[in-house]
Amino acid sequence: MNQQENIVLKPIGIVRSPIKEVADDCWGGVLATIELDPQVFSPECTLGLDQYSHVEVLFVLDKISQDEIEKGARHPRGRPGWPKMGIFAQRSKHRPNRIGVTACKLESVDGLHIRVRELDAVDGTPVLDVKPYLKGFAPRGEVLEPAWAAELMAGYFR
Amino acid sequence: MNQQENIVLKPIGIVRSPIKEVADDCWGGVLATIELDPQVFSPECTLGLDQYSHVEVLFVLDKISQDEIEKGARHPRGRPGWPKMGIFAQRSKHRPNRIGVTACKLESVDGLHIRVRELDAVDGTPVLDVKPYLKGFAPRGEVLEPAWAAELMAGYFR
Repeated sequence: MNQQENIVLKPIGIVRSPIKEVADDCWGGVLATIELDPQVFSPECTLGLDQYSHVEVLFVLDKISQDEIEKGARHPRGRPGWPKMGIFAQRSKHRPNRIGVTACKLESVDGLHIRVRELDAVDGTPVLDVKPYLKGFAPRGEVLEPAWAAELMAGYFR
Repeated sequence: MNQQENIVLKPIGIVRSPIKEVADDCWGGVLATIELDPQVFSPECTLGLDQYSHVEVLFVLDKISQDEIEKGARHPRGRPGWPKMGIFAQRSKHRPNRIGVTACKLESVDGLHIRVRELDAVDGTPVLDVKPYLKGFAPRGEVLEPAWAAELMAGYFR
């Protein structure tokens, strides 16, 4: 592979959330606001967004320090009862580049303020992008996953 | 909003694809390989990935130049028959931070090589992350979208 240059990104905004501490579960009742940067954006950047039910939010898991990042394999959640999986075979926070992607229910849109439900990011998290959820981008074909994945997710959006 | 620092990311790998030019449609038959960086990763980083049917690939739309980035609103695909939408209300390539996220069908995994179908990224595209697609991360609740979105997607994965 050719040597690749670093990618420098500027957050488009920040998460305002009642959740102040990193958590593994129970994002179901959370109502958060994405505040877009008023130095860069005007309200028309969200024009028509309220016509969708869901958005995908891309954010930086910046509470995870560099030395907590896994580059190999580990048991999800550190649970020895679940099989050891490569970091790209799980959605652990402790991943290279520390980017989270979550489909959230859109609650309301008011110019530079986007209200969402079930965003699994703590207060102050930098946001890299907000994309509307299009049905056409859902996985094509049947989705298969290992058994422990459903067990892990059982409490995630509770 | 507080001043936010830039985020510096290092691609985890690169896309190898038969598609060499940026295109709007017809990603359906494309079979591409994500080559993970052998300087950073060992084969165990994909351990167990083959137990999933789909992955989400995060990549940088680096063929879009900075002056092509939209920060306000525009007609999707420049089509005046479709309503003007904010850049965060469409999935245009011409977006701040230029990150693409696509759920792809997993074809095979061989250590640092991940073969995927329907990846809408051209040859040489930097990859930021690969996440397994978990059913629990699908949108919760009914998905709604404007009518033109289905029209736009009709030829996307053809």
